[in-house]
Amino acid sequence: MKEQNIPYKIYLSEDELPKQWYNLRADMKNKPAPLLSGKTMKPITLEELSEVFCTELAKQELDETTAYFDIPEEILKFYKMYRPAPLTRAYFLEEKLQTPAKIYYKFEGNNTSGSHKLNSAIAQAYYAKKQGLKGVTTETGAGQWGTALSMACSYFDMDCQVYMVKVSYEQKPFRREVMRTYGANVTPSPSTTTEVGKRILAAHPGTNGSLGCAISEAVEAAMKQEGYRYVLGSVLNQVMLHQSIIGLETKAALDKYGITPDIIIGCAGGGSNLGGLIAPFMGEKIRGEKDYRFIAVEPASCPSLTRGTYAYDYCDTGMICPLSKMYTLGSNFMPSASHAGGLRYHGMSSTLSQLYDDGLMEAVSVEQTKVFEAAEMFARVEGTLPAPESSHAIRVAIDEALKCKETGEEKTIVFGLTGTGYFDMFAYERFHNGEMSDYIPTDEEIKEALKNLPKLD
Amino acid sequence: MKEQNIPYKIYLSEDELPKQWYNLRADMKNKPAPLLSGKTMKPITLEELSEVFCTELAKQELDETTAYFDIPEEILKFYKMYRPAPLTRAYFLEEKLQTPAKIYYKFEGNNTSGSHKLNSAIAQAYYAKKQGLKGVTTETGAGQWGTALSMACSYFDMDCQVYMVKVSYEQKPFRREVMRTYGANVTPSPSTTTEVGKRILAAHPGTNGSLGCAISEAVEAAMKQEGYRYVLGSVLNQVMLHQSIIGLETKAALDKYGITPDIIIGCAGGGSNLGGLIAPFMGEKIRGEKDYRFIAVEPASCPSLTRGTYAYDYCDTGMICPLSKMYTLGSNFMPSASHAGGLRYHGMSSTLSQLYDDGLMEAVSVEQTKVFEAAEMFARVEGTLPAPESSHAIRVAIDEALKCKETGEEKTIVFGLTGTGYFDMFAYERFHNGEMSDYIPTDEEIKEALKNLPKLD
Repeated sequence: MKEQNIPYKIYLSEDELPKQWYNLRADMKNKPAPLLSGKTMKPITLEELSEVFCTELAKQELDETTAYFDIPEEILKFYKMYRPAPLTRAYFLEEKLQTPAKIYYKFEGNNTSGSHKLNSAIAQAYYAKKQGLKGVTTETGAGQWGTALSMACSYFDMDCQVYMVKVSYEQKPFRREVMRTYGANVTPSPSTTTEVGKRILAAHPGTNGSLGCAISEAVEAAMKQEGYRYVLGSVLNQVMLHQSIIGLETKAALDKYGITPDIIIGCAGGGSNLGGLIAPFMGEKIRGEKDYRFIAVEPASCPSLTRGTYAYDYCDTGMICPLSKMYTLGSNFMPSASHAGGLRYHGMSSTLSQLYDDGLMEAVSVEQTKVFEAAEMFARVEGTLPAPESSHAIRVAIDEALKCKETGEEKTIVFGLTGTGYFDMFAYERFHNGEMSDYIPTDEEIKEALKNLPKLD
Repeated sequence: MKEQNIPYKIYLSEDELPKQWYNLRADMKNKPAPLLSGKTMKPITLEELSEVFCTELAKQELDETTAYFDIPEEILKFYKMYRPAPLTRAYFLEEKLQTPAKIYYKFEGNNTSGSHKLNSAIAQAYYAKKQGLKGVTTETGAGQWGTALSMACSYFDMDCQVYMVKVSYEQKPFRREVMRTYGANVTPSPSTTTEVGKRILAAHPGTNGSLGCAISEAVEAAMKQEGYRYVLGSVLNQVMLHQSIIGLETKAALDKYGITPDIIIGCAGGGSNLGGLIAPFMGEKIRGEKDYRFIAVEPASCPSLTRGTYAYDYCDTGMICPLSKMYTLGSNFMPSASHAGGLRYHGMSSTLSQLYDDGLMEAVSVEQTKVFEAAEMFARVEGTLPAPESSHAIRVAIDEALKCKETGEEKTIVFGLTGTGYFDMFAYERFHNGEMSDYIPTDEEIKEALKNLPKLD
């Protein structure tokens, strides 16, 4: 019997909550490559970036030297609505696996948006409000980000316009209604409210929509309305900064009980959760204070780190946003229609890309049926029904714990449980009915998509 | 500005968690009337009751004198998976209402079943397992209870057979898939797996099913399978006992900060949440140690306490279960089809009925559009999107807080937030679309349903 003096759930008290975000870039020796303006193909200036984002957020985006940013009081207050998020010792899972490993997970699904996205949504809404904006526009696919932004805008009494991929709008009416509950204006995309939407509808009358199209509509809507900006829930440095709250809380909770992790695992789509979770630990590693293994887990059907190229690419399918140097599969890459598990972004945060390129972080890809097997096992033994995205991390945490069983090592594993799967039951249904398949893109398909990379001097 | 030294969320530590359930009946001067056997119309014996329930549960059901029951270790361990449930200070709601009242809510939706039902499901599954049973059968309407029981049975590796009202099975596929994730066998009711199901299908080929029919099927399925029992998630004394964990935790959290509530509010369908929440406080009131106001909130479309009759009645539409003396609308009573907000049981726990009859507790009924207005306001300011059931309590908590605003009284209000509304978005959709109406049964309709009351000597 292992020692059981660690509680099942470690909750920080209010005065133990982090008061600052941590900017990992300040400690990185090789900084992530700068964003390039799509017009000039030169590093983007604060002025240029401020046309897209609120000035404060643009500053955060470009700041490579300030290690800590004070979290504004208003945001700290909002965080108390759903934070601290518990760090849970997975005693039940350990018992099920009969592993000597000690497993912990940081649960970020303890709020109505159902994921960690709220951490950055509230920050972006706050700075938009502070700048006197009337509202923001965004796109959403599955709906996690749209829901989080709706909640944040509702809190600051700001208009929130969400372009939701048409097929999700129709097939996921629950997420849509959650957003409406928070007062958001949800439009199925493509729509007739924008020029680009009208063009796409004319060319493809029966289209189900795509994330790329929804982004284009949201950007157009922001541009043509006075007092609006477009906002984004992942990939960006500012998002990594806000999400550092995940890692800082995790570290504070571990430190409280004198626990040092050996392996830290997170799922990675655009990188917002993983970047936030590992930030303070990676800082220690870079500064040479401690050593950890970091593992990014991505779907085998959208393997940007494990099979992509490290190069400048467009962040969006519409090629409207600035360019970022990142591991990418090409901005045209679309995961197979059989892919149900989220994490479908073609690229990866520039910060995480640089860390991976520097060998400071590992990456693995996993097949979705294996992911859902892990998800179901986790739900049954730990109680919480996980989001498909989060279940990628569960899969690899289980795999690492099983390796410990073989070797007898008592490693301490921490992973990020980014959210709940309550609005993803169609994917679970396909899994239960044996209708889920694993499609892995061929080398040719990836090569084809990478032809679209921008040509730089 | 009011004092802000109470944290937003009060979490008990593991060693502060209650180790015993509290049996309020032990302190009641007027005990609830005994259950009657449907066969003999006499008080049911332990032997008779043990044919329906596991022996330990039957003992709990009949025990009016033991004040405290030790919670078995296995159940305490399971409780740690999702407990302590936070007691939250509703600072955001207070600010929105501009009330001098201090509002707290006990949140029981912090688990995948999404409600407090899990507290009793795990206990019932435990005793079934301990007795060597193979499995249990039950019915579910909206699916909260079925989900909770699935989770509990999965934990003890027991078979769980859920008869789900056909219309819910088809229109609420998400709940169904959650149950399947936990390994439950979910059958749309009426089905061809039981004799009663076949009879009903023959008589009404296109029927959508009803809770009464699902109960009958579940009972039949339990009777004809060796090693099975039928279990129930509300109304019963044993359920009140298990749910006392809600009130005990609430009281421990309040005591920790020296807070004494003035008013305690809970929604009431069969009474499982309200009975659990108020138990230790009501004990103090009965023993003359303290005084509190208790308010049961029920839907205006199903007003058993406020407009029903206190009499012996059948607990189920099929008239198979024992009879209970309770406030009832008649076992044939069905709330209008326009009713979306849960709490559709025709009667009320015999314990709560007796307390109400003794004048120890108040009851109010509220219309559902007012309930959803409160739900939406609460979601926007407190973040959590509440279950329609829980929102009945929110409505009255808001109303009481607004009265304080008028009088200037700084009352302390505690209410039970029994669960989340993530699987109830169809009801929210109707509300958003202005398609929700308030139908209140006429006196004639209630009189008609009450004609069905059993004739006793």
